[in-house]
Amino acid sequence: MASVAADVTDKSEVLGGAADAPLPLASLMADIGRRARKAARALALTSDAARTQALNSAASAIREDAEGLIAANAEDIADARAAGRGEAFIDRLQLTPARVEAIAKAVELVAGLPDPVGRVLATFERPNGLVIERVSVPLGVIGVIFESRPNVAADAGSLCVKAGNAAILRAGSESFRSAQRLVAAVRSGLENAGLPADAVQLVPVRDREAVGLLLGGLDGNVDVIVPRGGKGLVARVQAEARVPVFAHLDGICHVFVHRDADLDMARKVLLNAKMRRTGICGAAETLLVDRAVADTHLKPLVTALIEAGCEVRGDAETQAVDPRVKPATEEDWRTEYEDAIISARVVDDLSQAIDHIETYGSHHTESIITQDKEAAARFQREVDSAIVAHNASTQFADGGEFGFGAEIGIATGRMHARGPVGVEQLTSFKYRIHGNGQTRP
Amino acid sequence: MASVAADVTDKSEVLGGAADAPLPLASLMADIGRRARKAARALALTSDAARTQALNSAASAIREDAEGLIAANAEDIADARAAGRGEAFIDRLQLTPARVEAIAKAVELVAGLPDPVGRVLATFERPNGLVIERVSVPLGVIGVIFESRPNVAADAGSLCVKAGNAAILRAGSESFRSAQRLVAAVRSGLENAGLPADAVQLVPVRDREAVGLLLGGLDGNVDVIVPRGGKGLVARVQAEARVPVFAHLDGICHVFVHRDADLDMARKVLLNAKMRRTGICGAAETLLVDRAVADTHLKPLVTALIEAGCEVRGDAETQAVDPRVKPATEEDWRTEYEDAIISARVVDDLSQAIDHIETYGSHHTESIITQDKEAAARFQREVDSAIVAHNASTQFADGGEFGFGAEIGIATGRMHARGPVGVEQLTSFKYRIHGNGQTRP
Repeated sequence: MASVAADVTDKSEVLGGAADAPLPLASLMADIGRRARKAARALALTSDAARTQALNSAASAIREDAEGLIAANAEDIADARAAGRGEAFIDRLQLTPARVEAIAKAVELVAGLPDPVGRVLATFERPNGLVIERVSVPLGVIGVIFESRPNVAADAGSLCVKAGNAAILRAGSESFRSAQRLVAAVRSGLENAGLPADAVQLVPVRDREAVGLLLGGLDGNVDVIVPRGGKGLVARVQAEARVPVFAHLDGICHVFVHRDADLDMARKVLLNAKMRRTGICGAAETLLVDRAVADTHLKPLVTALIEAGCEVRGDAETQAVDPRVKPATEEDWRTEYEDAIISARVVDDLSQAIDHIETYGSHHTESIITQDKEAAARFQREVDSAIVAHNASTQFADGGEFGFGAEIGIATGRMHARGPVGVEQLTSFKYRIHGNGQTRP
Repeated sequence: MASVAADVTDKSEVLGGAADAPLPLASLMADIGRRARKAARALALTSDAARTQALNSAASAIREDAEGLIAANAEDIADARAAGRGEAFIDRLQLTPARVEAIAKAVELVAGLPDPVGRVLATFERPNGLVIERVSVPLGVIGVIFESRPNVAADAGSLCVKAGNAAILRAGSESFRSAQRLVAAVRSGLENAGLPADAVQLVPVRDREAVGLLLGGLDGNVDVIVPRGGKGLVARVQAEARVPVFAHLDGICHVFVHRDADLDMARKVLLNAKMRRTGICGAAETLLVDRAVADTHLKPLVTALIEAGCEVRGDAETQAVDPRVKPATEEDWRTEYEDAIISARVVDDLSQAIDHIETYGSHHTESIITQDKEAAARFQREVDSAIVAHNASTQFADGGEFGFGAEIGIATGRMHARGPVGVEQLTSFKYRIHGNGQTRP
């Protein structure tokens, strides 16, 4: 097996030739930006059939290279173990035959989505006879910065390509070889379909400075950045990026059990929202119970959580219902545990529930449990979160569950994309005016 | 009449109390940001009826204060004349009784627009019975930086309020008193309707550093910046802003006369596109004529332009049809004249026309004149501009002409808003999930 350095050089040639001769990092990144813009312009004029073919071909290439992928991944894992990474990290990093197959299938799923480009989003017929259409077009060049999960290279790359965009991928140092091999497969799929391989580029060096350059926008050749990773990465991206970012920093999601909640439904939804998977951003972190039903609902809900293996940290009233409840501190209300822990408190009413969420929440996903439609409507109107559910688990915060097919992430910003970011959110639009000689008076 | 300094102090109190005691500029601006965010949160929960009432009341207040407005404006004009400003500048700055009435009417027009908030933009029904709605919500806090036209204070402020947003307005030094007086009227309208006056704030100082602070985003309290003014302003904003910007730098708009163009239609549309108003961003700056019809179409088009008072700068073939045509330099193809001047050239075909536009254009507005629907469709697909017209004047690049009622500007970026930015583009969205106890498997 080649040494690390030789391997990087070999692959970086495969990955676009940007490093045929060693370039200073800034020149190398600027060149990647120019290649991406050129590829994006070409991709914007391709048919959906060509993009679909490219992605199906990429999926085949991933399957065919399963052994090579797993071998490259083994090198990444060996380095990660040598660096003392924990088992949770190794698990995120690891590729197995089943995971390679899942990656290929995910690429095929994206390939099969409806064409997000060319949708007529609105039509205006004007009194002067002009017909004006707003029609979706690709967004441009999307920078994706990810950490240990190598599948992001294939997932994000295919979502970008499906929407007619170019992607610049920056893999975490630990997943570098795995990502490189996956990107090579995706690029071969693009070439098989006659599309420019540079529509998906991996930054071919591990320098951390490359991230800073990417966040700077590469001379206007990056339109948006999507960070996929832990809070450290997202926080850095949000602080440093000179281009728009689709991301969320925290997912401090709330379940509010309103006075008109059905207890059985509340228990079922709450347990799912907290415990189905505790590490995802849509997992509930705080339970709010309406004082009007605290006597009847609080104890059964707390008991159900504890019996499901969840630690409960509560206010005085919550502590009073079960000796196993630990006291919640101010910090608890601001904490995304990403674990089997929940904070819980009693609120006076709907208004106080909304106030609590606006004070401590992260504008991600919240849910109200109630049979009162007016209360639900007010909650959904006044809570300023990307997703506000009524009688449903917060864990539905997911592009797949929304019917988007796949998502590149979930955004809590207010510009362009909010909530799950699927292929539709990776498009912009233009206007087509259809006239028969109209002039403006 | 009070001295300038006293006047500023008096008004800044009216304008929000931010300067009750003199604050360092950074603190003052940070305070404006916090007030705006607070007002935006409150405004997001108001009814359309309240926002409409506030704007109608603002229009009345503007009318009632016509004398005061014109007096304040006279001071601005006196200073501008003393500073040696030209007549075109003075004209943009000047308020007359008719212009005050027009400003009030414009505010009423915005008041009467359909509510842009709460529109259901999409509905997904999921196999598990969940109904998911994408619904429009206000965008947040919008910073508007403008120069000499005081009406922007009322126009932009009312567009922001209609969409449930707060506005932070930064007036050019020369229009400061006029803007102050207009903003005071708008704020009184807000208060009359029980809405927070801080939904529209004017930066109460003339320091140029205030612009830099606003562009920095005021600690996350500014969501988007809209510059309204000359290229110097727009370029500075685009270079320095740390938040998204809705703007266009250039409007280098093209008219392409295709081989299947009707000559009469081409002449009529071209003259309108170039000469109706030469100073607006949708005015045509370059004429491209298909070689296949150069023999029949080029001379009549050039003659019509020259006879309408337009200077023509052409390539060799265009110069050959009329001795009055001046030679075009490379720089001409990149120039937005904003004047009765046009560059003109012959292109080989549709492909070369598209190449020319992509090479020299500014992604604003272009038009193809042709009877060939396939050529038009290809032009509209491949030209990467915000607005691409077929058989219609480029001067339709305007929110009013699109039926948006009014616009805060035209954007050539690809994020969130593109083309005319009306009240709809000043909204974001959220998702509402309607369930009956669904949990995620």
